[in-house]
Amino acid sequence: MVRIAVVAPSCTLKREAAEAVQAIASARGDCELMIHPQSFLSEGHFAGSDADRLAALREVMADECVDAVWFARGGYGSNRIAETAVKDLPSAARTKTYLGYSDGGFLLAGLHKAGASVAHGPMVQDVVREGGPAAVNRALDWMVRGDPDALEAGVDGPALAFNLTVLSNLLGTSLEPDFSGADLLVEDVSEHLYRIDRTMFHLSSSPSVRKVRRLRLGRVSDVPDNDPAFGSDAEAIVRDWCTRSGIPFGGSADIGHDAANKVVPFGQSGF
Amino acid sequence: MVRIAVVAPSCTLKREAAEAVQAIASARGDCELMIHPQSFLSEGHFAGSDADRLAALREVMADECVDAVWFARGGYGSNRIAETAVKDLPSAARTKTYLGYSDGGFLLAGLHKAGASVAHGPMVQDVVREGGPAAVNRALDWMVRGDPDALEAGVDGPALAFNLTVLSNLLGTSLEPDFSGADLLVEDVSEHLYRIDRTMFHLSSSPSVRKVRRLRLGRVSDVPDNDPAFGSDAEAIVRDWCTRSGIPFGGSADIGHDAANKVVPFGQSGF
Repeated sequence: MVRIAVVAPSCTLKREAAEAVQAIASARGDCELMIHPQSFLSEGHFAGSDADRLAALREVMADECVDAVWFARGGYGSNRIAETAVKDLPSAARTKTYLGYSDGGFLLAGLHKAGASVAHGPMVQDVVREGGPAAVNRALDWMVRGDPDALEAGVDGPALAFNLTVLSNLLGTSLEPDFSGADLLVEDVSEHLYRIDRTMFHLSSSPSVRKVRRLRLGRVSDVPDNDPAFGSDAEAIVRDWCTRSGIPFGGSADIGHDAANKVVPFGQSGF
Repeated sequence: MVRIAVVAPSCTLKREAAEAVQAIASARGDCELMIHPQSFLSEGHFAGSDADRLAALREVMADECVDAVWFARGGYGSNRIAETAVKDLPSAARTKTYLGYSDGGFLLAGLHKAGASVAHGPMVQDVVREGGPAAVNRALDWMVRGDPDALEAGVDGPALAFNLTVLSNLLGTSLEPDFSGADLLVEDVSEHLYRIDRTMFHLSSSPSVRKVRRLRLGRVSDVPDNDPAFGSDAEAIVRDWCTRSGIPFGGSADIGHDAANKVVPFGQSGF
């Protein structure tokens, strides 16, 4: 029985999402889901204070009975605790798997850099999306048995996957990963095309990022209207900045803020 | 008669703004405003193609008859031409003043780094704001005669001023300025508080930015509603990240996306 702890380093988990995912886990019978009560806290924008979120995360990281730590949802806020969360990792923190995406990317970056095993993939609250149960089962299949069917199919070497805006905001910080030789997969949601263009300028102008093997583009969804029309689409924008910066463009990636979001383990693709 | 060239490195200048500012300049009689026809071009999001915007900018930069280059307006796009614009500066480009803000900050950064004299301050299209003519006259007072009354009053040493989001997007690029010992003034507009917090994380986590003498906060205006309420305001957010990062917080700055926006010359505050 694989034991999976759920914590919310960013925003508050909805009760109905937690219940739906508990029901899925119970029906599967191959995992035990321990949803930390911190997941339901609410303080301003966040699932509790920085201290609350940090304490819950550090608690499950240090727990030797926990096999995997699953981020409840994104939103915003994991960056506020990430640097402290990955300091002086307890040994039990290195032997478990961490799964999340979106704002959780700040933590994935820090944990990966600290030597833990992390993957970019569906979170608990994704269950409320259309087709969400499939995303949740994919995440569980990965955490429970490293199911290769959960993986993004194009990954054939060391990989990193991020929300584009989150990645831009961790460049130059202590969370920035080593991009050398990695496939870098990016996706984004609810950003204007002018912002995608600006963020791609920022990303592709970084000498560190230019060390990637190639950049692949996941879904860029729920793009608000640009006034006037931007004159280009997300793929053309990314191709343009890849050309300007000399980063090889590797085509599309099967990740995004949707139920089809596949799992991308950081570093080597093995479980 | 001071000759001021207007170009639009970002978005298209409105005809009515151009006419209103021409009328103000004519009435003053101490300057000649040469609005480059590129300012009125439109291609997708931008005031003409990258090539159009770059050519107009390089043309007025190299023109020995031009005393000052005034950016027509912000929006988005100057980053797409900034690196090329500041390469191999013609000698005439070093002896003139450049004025703008918001998206124009990408160019201010690049020009400052290349040794030109730049200042953060009102642009042509600000004339359409409430009280806009005062902003335009302030900009002209600065460009025509280096009027000390145009200056942000708190600047008492080397300074840099930026839109916070623009600054975040140029960190780590070839446009990043030397922050050592400078007063850094930031302002922002139309950004959610969670984005201000995230951007302040990014900014204040940069070892280069941590070399500033102090950080001062201009106006953060037109903030969209945060859902739920963020739990903090812009000043508290900036103070918090200053405390976390060891950057001295220097209080408020008299800059912003409004008609009261004062002039901040980069580097030493002399004209």
